[in-house]
Amino acid sequence: MSLNSFGHLFRVTTWGESHGPALGATVDGCPPGVPIDEAMIQHWLDRRKPGQNKYTTQRREPDAVKILSGVFEGQTTGTPVQLMIENTDQRSKDYSEIMEKFRPGHADITYWQKYGIRDYRGGGRSSARETAARVAAGGLAREAIKALAPGVEIKGYMTQIGPYKIDNERFDDVQIGQNPFWCPDPQAATEWADYLDGLRKSGNSVGAVVEVVAKGVPAGLGAPVYGKIDTDLAAAMMSINAVKGVEIGEGMNAAALTGEDNADEIFMGNDGQPVFSSNHAGGILGGISTGQDLVVRFAVKPTSSILKTRQTITKSGEAAEIITKGRHDPCVGIRAVPVGEAMMACVILDHLLLHRGQIGENRGRIG
Amino acid sequence: MSLNSFGHLFRVTTWGESHGPALGATVDGCPPGVPIDEAMIQHWLDRRKPGQNKYTTQRREPDAVKILSGVFEGQTTGTPVQLMIENTDQRSKDYSEIMEKFRPGHADITYWQKYGIRDYRGGGRSSARETAARVAAGGLAREAIKALAPGVEIKGYMTQIGPYKIDNERFDDVQIGQNPFWCPDPQAATEWADYLDGLRKSGNSVGAVVEVVAKGVPAGLGAPVYGKIDTDLAAAMMSINAVKGVEIGEGMNAAALTGEDNADEIFMGNDGQPVFSSNHAGGILGGISTGQDLVVRFAVKPTSSILKTRQTITKSGEAAEIITKGRHDPCVGIRAVPVGEAMMACVILDHLLLHRGQIGENRGRIG
Amino acid sequence: MSLNSFGHLFRVTTWGESHGPALGATVDGCPPGVPIDEAMIQHWLDRRKPGQNKYTTQRREPDAVKILSGVFEGQTTGTPVQLMIENTDQRSKDYSEIMEKFRPGHADITYWQKYGIRDYRGGGRSSARETAARVAAGGLAREAIKALAPGVEIKGYMTQIGPYKIDNERFDDVQIGQNPFWCPDPQAATEWADYLDGLRKSGNSVGAVVEVVAKGVPAGLGAPVYGKIDTDLAAAMMSINAVKGVEIGEGMNAAALTGEDNADEIFMGNDGQPVFSSNHAGGILGGISTGQDLVVRFAVKPTSSILKTRQTITKSGEAAEIITKGRHDPCVGIRAVPVGEAMMACVILDHLLLHRGQIGENRGRIG
Amino acid sequence: MSLNSFGHLFRVTTWGESHGPALGATVDGCPPGVPIDEAMIQHWLDRRKPGQNKYTTQRREPDAVKILSGVFEGQTTGTPVQLMIENTDQRSKDYSEIMEKFRPGHADITYWQKYGIRDYRGGGRSSARETAARVAAGGLAREAIKALAPGVEIKGYMTQIGPYKIDNERFDDVQIGQNPFWCPDPQAATEWADYLDGLRKSGNSVGAVVEVVAKGVPAGLGAPVYGKIDTDLAAAMMSINAVKGVEIGEGMNAAALTGEDNADEIFMGNDGQPVFSSNHAGGILGGISTGQDLVVRFAVKPTSSILKTRQTITKSGEAAEIITKGRHDPCVGIRAVPVGEAMMACVILDHLLLHRGQIGENRGRIG
Repeated sequence: MSLNSFGHLFRVTTWGESHGPALGATVDGCPPGVPIDEAMIQHWLDRRKPGQNKYTTQRREPDAVKILSGVFEGQTTGTPVQLMIENTDQRSKDYSEIMEKFRPGHADITYWQKYGIRDYRGGGRSSARETAARVAAGGLAREAIKALAPGVEIKGYMTQIGPYKIDNERFDDVQIGQNPFWCPDPQAATEWADYLDGLRKSGNSVGAVVEVVAKGVPAGLGAPVYGKIDTDLAAAMMSINAVKGVEIGEGMNAAALTGEDNADEIFMGNDGQPVFSSNHAGGILGGISTGQDLVVRFAVKPTSSILKTRQTITKSGEAAEIITKGRHDPCVGIRAVPVGEAMMACVILDHLLLHRGQIGENRGRIG
Repeated sequence: MSLNSFGHLFRVTTWGESHGPALGATVDGCPPGVPIDEAMIQHWLDRRKPGQNKYTTQRREPDAVKILSGVFEGQTTGTPVQLMIENTDQRSKDYSEIMEKFRPGHADITYWQKYGIRDYRGGGRSSARETAARVAAGGLAREAIKALAPGVEIKGYMTQIGPYKIDNERFDDVQIGQNPFWCPDPQAATEWADYLDGLRKSGNSVGAVVEVVAKGVPAGLGAPVYGKIDTDLAAAMMSINAVKGVEIGEGMNAAALTGEDNADEIFMGNDGQPVFSSNHAGGILGGISTGQDLVVRFAVKPTSSILKTRQTITKSGEAAEIITKGRHDPCVGIRAVPVGEAMMACVILDHLLLHRGQIGENRGRIG
Repeated sequence: MSLNSFGHLFRVTTWGESHGPALGATVDGCPPGVPIDEAMIQHWLDRRKPGQNKYTTQRREPDAVKILSGVFEGQTTGTPVQLMIENTDQRSKDYSEIMEKFRPGHADITYWQKYGIRDYRGGGRSSARETAARVAAGGLAREAIKALAPGVEIKGYMTQIGPYKIDNERFDDVQIGQNPFWCPDPQAATEWADYLDGLRKSGNSVGAVVEVVAKGVPAGLGAPVYGKIDTDLAAAMMSINAVKGVEIGEGMNAAALTGEDNADEIFMGNDGQPVFSSNHAGGILGGISTGQDLVVRFAVKPTSSILKTRQTITKSGEAAEIITKGRHDPCVGIRAVPVGEAMMACVILDHLLLHRGQIGENRGRIG
Repeated sequence: MSLNSFGHLFRVTTWGESHGPALGATVDGCPPGVPIDEAMIQHWLDRRKPGQNKYTTQRREPDAVKILSGVFEGQTTGTPVQLMIENTDQRSKDYSEIMEKFRPGHADITYWQKYGIRDYRGGGRSSARETAARVAAGGLAREAIKALAPGVEIKGYMTQIGPYKIDNERFDDVQIGQNPFWCPDPQAATEWADYLDGLRKSGNSVGAVVEVVAKGVPAGLGAPVYGKIDTDLAAAMMSINAVKGVEIGEGMNAAALTGEDNADEIFMGNDGQPVFSSNHAGGILGGISTGQDLVVRFAVKPTSSILKTRQTITKSGEAAEIITKGRHDPCVGIRAVPVGEAMMACVILDHLLLHRGQIGENRGRIG
């Protein structure tokens, strides 16, 4: 058991802080023979990299990954893969302000209350930098999935920033990569740009909703009860910093539906596989994948570091005011898109391995 | 690793199906010396018991718990506690209809696709009966918490049935136990009664939202990243059957807030403990409890067994129609309230033990 | 994590004490579709059953197993299998002697020092009765192995009782089941009978060595480092009560060998599989099975309950004398043979599943 | 679950190969506030370092450890500690010989059969270099133990090389650090020197027995059944490469003892703590520490790389001869002493945390 690990058979342990020499992911249980090199992982890290546009933090880190173990002649060996990212943009600065004061919305106060020691130079393990390690691990997971379930495609995008939601009528896959927001609705992207410009100038921030969809996931992944694939997806997404809610399929809206509305009816598809009239279930029944799209959504709270004066206290218990200066994301949710994809990849690979372990390649057949 | 287990140090493994001889929970890691007997656990099971009013399934099971191990002279010994509940109301009936057809919204099809074998007499592990084992384990957890954190109080209630939400202005703790819905708003309870009567008569069902609050949880429980207390709460709640969304504090609504709105400001309370101006965070910062109320919400989808004709397929892949007769809950969310409380209790106890294990009794002091 | 669980994917959690209502094993992760019924498990339990001859405890328990879950129409469903054995021979007796005094060699004193509470009526979890649950789980594991690696044969026997070892020249498989000692050497069996008769009459006891061999285990099971199959075998055997030493292949004797003597040379066999000139390695290289026989040995200490006066102390710290009356085994090692076999079966099945999970059905080919 | 991890709450995951850029240990669950720096860990690594005398491999690696995370201002923060050791002495050499042939006694053949891919440049994860990561983690564990159980002292030494055992009559603590063999018997050390000189010249190697003793371990650590402290010690030691047998207290010799001989009688010591007349149990009863010395022994097989021609096969299944040249240890057991100590430290710390987690600071009192 490790509180910094995730996954059962494909097991990712992340380590490192924002202001130490390096951070990374120790990935155990990867199948052998997966073709991988640093460039293939770097591809995914570059999508998460800060400083790519004015809507994300201006901290500039190359986030260059090094593979320290577990790969030989361009293939995984089946032993632990160490993925390390060195921290390079640690500006020396004056920490006297935040050393003693707890920043509201941050984990400063709880770290202190739990551990009695806190690296005041940054968010420690709660920094968004920790998610770089997840993206690296997710890059490896994506390659491993290819051999096991070649049809799987994972795509994340934003569906809401602040009060502005996308219009599903305008949903266009192609748009996702063509704006700084991973937004599938070009009109929403324009609205968001204006909205975020205003927020950024006023030193404020805002929350967001990210949706991640996995297509082509085979039926039969997951297990009843605690090993449900939705249990693991919920844990995976909730473990991302700043996430406050997770939904599968209809999510919280399931409360408002009747049984008649909600039940996805079943038919035989032309390819001899079952198809469903709808996907309220988000691709999961009883914790096990149906073969439909896996659909998960999560809400990211607004960045807590804002240029607004807030009331707080010091370590010695005195009242104080604080303004969190620094290079922060006006909407940290934007950079959560590749992170959510990475977590989806890790969960799917893990459940592919779990399923194969317990049951093998055969499954119950229909027809 | 077990896909039917939950928790790190206080580890609950549930077992059993709705139509086998018994089901139960194997609970490992409970501290020794916790006063417990069957009546104390039965108290919580009775709150979940079906057949108590016309809004829950008319299946009549005494759900009588037996303690088979781990308790000596009225106290836990520190070794595994086996909590067994025998199934007594297994009416023999004609299963020919559901033996071959997959009920939409149920796990019938995914069980078949995963395992190639399925106990067609009921939901197997996906049956709501499995949650009785959780409630039993939660009853033990509540007693163990008393010695470790005597101020903890856990209370669940419903905030929404179908489209009808409670009005927080009318929130009244006392009301929760005085209607069949665990509803803190008496007016909503009346609305819900009417609404459910209609649904029940038409053979339909509906979803719900349950909120569970834990007061008096000490600051410092949890850990960053994957061991976040919100990660474990999300997994705990999502693992309950029919749950499709989980929220901490503001939950999905956090997306709509600005950083200025969302950041709970910090002050010193009169008792020398920090207090917050608000609790958007739901009592958790960076995965660690703040000492404020822990607030978690989850959505339960409508019961899938309804008296409506639905399209489906058979095991041999032929199109078919199905009506799921039986003794079902029009709103299975109602009985999820004690289950959500039980999961909250298990998570809190587990994190109390984890914290004590890694760090001991001392914590960082403020002031 | 559970301190009463064993295994990774095939995960066995045992529960129950010698003097409670029942004990058993909660078995998770078993593949679905394994043919099983109570009689098939009872077969293995009957081999461990006490009271079968004068060399084992005269406690008479039918040790009848009940399957409470996870099996439907004679096959495992892939969900937890609950195997329960009720305790029926709990004679009421006067516990005043052992209630306050710690029996030397027993866990009485350490249970008390750890938990501050102790079921003084028996050994609690340290009772040899706990091993019945392992044998039940092992019976299930044996059936599951058949589908995955049909050539596997597991056989345990004794090689030493007190100072008397078997002579390998006289090793005869057929003899193992034909004496009360699982002894492959008929002459040693006669010696042991005389020796134990003497010990029993004098109220003394003695230790033993058990060897368990698994033939037909496929090459490639295990993993380097902590997931070594020998690591898991060592843990499995050392977890059996009264075991004080575990050996793989040459075991402790490996210290006395030179590299030249110890290295098993490799050749190609007629069936296209590698064969080795010898098996000093006990079938394992680098933690991974070679395809040769897996050979594990363990030493069981003498039964601590003897009819000899021993010095001890009471809970209040006063000096005292104690004679442990009761129905005890003069050589508890005899009944450890089926237990060691069961643990071997569990480890092999677990590693078959782990291997299939990470790597699938294919392995590196030679030739 | 990770096959490269060890421990429950103090959880060590090692990664890296002998011929990659680096190896290390990801250590999770360390208590916060433990004073640590690289020099403190280096101290222990230097004891294991190769090339210190003619009896260990002449490979020259500084084995310099870097702390990449989890430490701030000289103290652990309670988050993962990454300990990295770069590989610097990777001589480029001609691997054509060992690329195709399997070295007898090595894991070459099993790695190939398991993974279908193998880093032929060295032993991969089975290399003795992996143990450097354990020693680093053990160095951290030792510091953490100081705060929790300040009286603990861990000491390892050799008791046998080849056929030559130490004479316990000549056991002298002070000698252990004064010869290249960690030998407490000066006369045996002289014998061993001569013996190993001969072996080294003839290109042969030999096995050894290492004993590790922990003094001052509090009573009450461990748990019955699978969480026994001896179970974890057995797994810890057996997981070290080349180990073939593990013993607690009397170990395999327990088989030869009678119950009368074996039972350690109990008395009250002058300090109000129980003392035992002897320590056949090796400090553990029923899986729980008694407060006496913890005594564990393990046998290390002879180094498999020898300058003797051995028969083997190639990947394509052809018969071949092989001589393993290289810079190898004539007795790899010598360098296993600090490794055994490190594993002992990790197990003790882990069980200190586990005990505190489940039970807290109080224990059952005697007197």
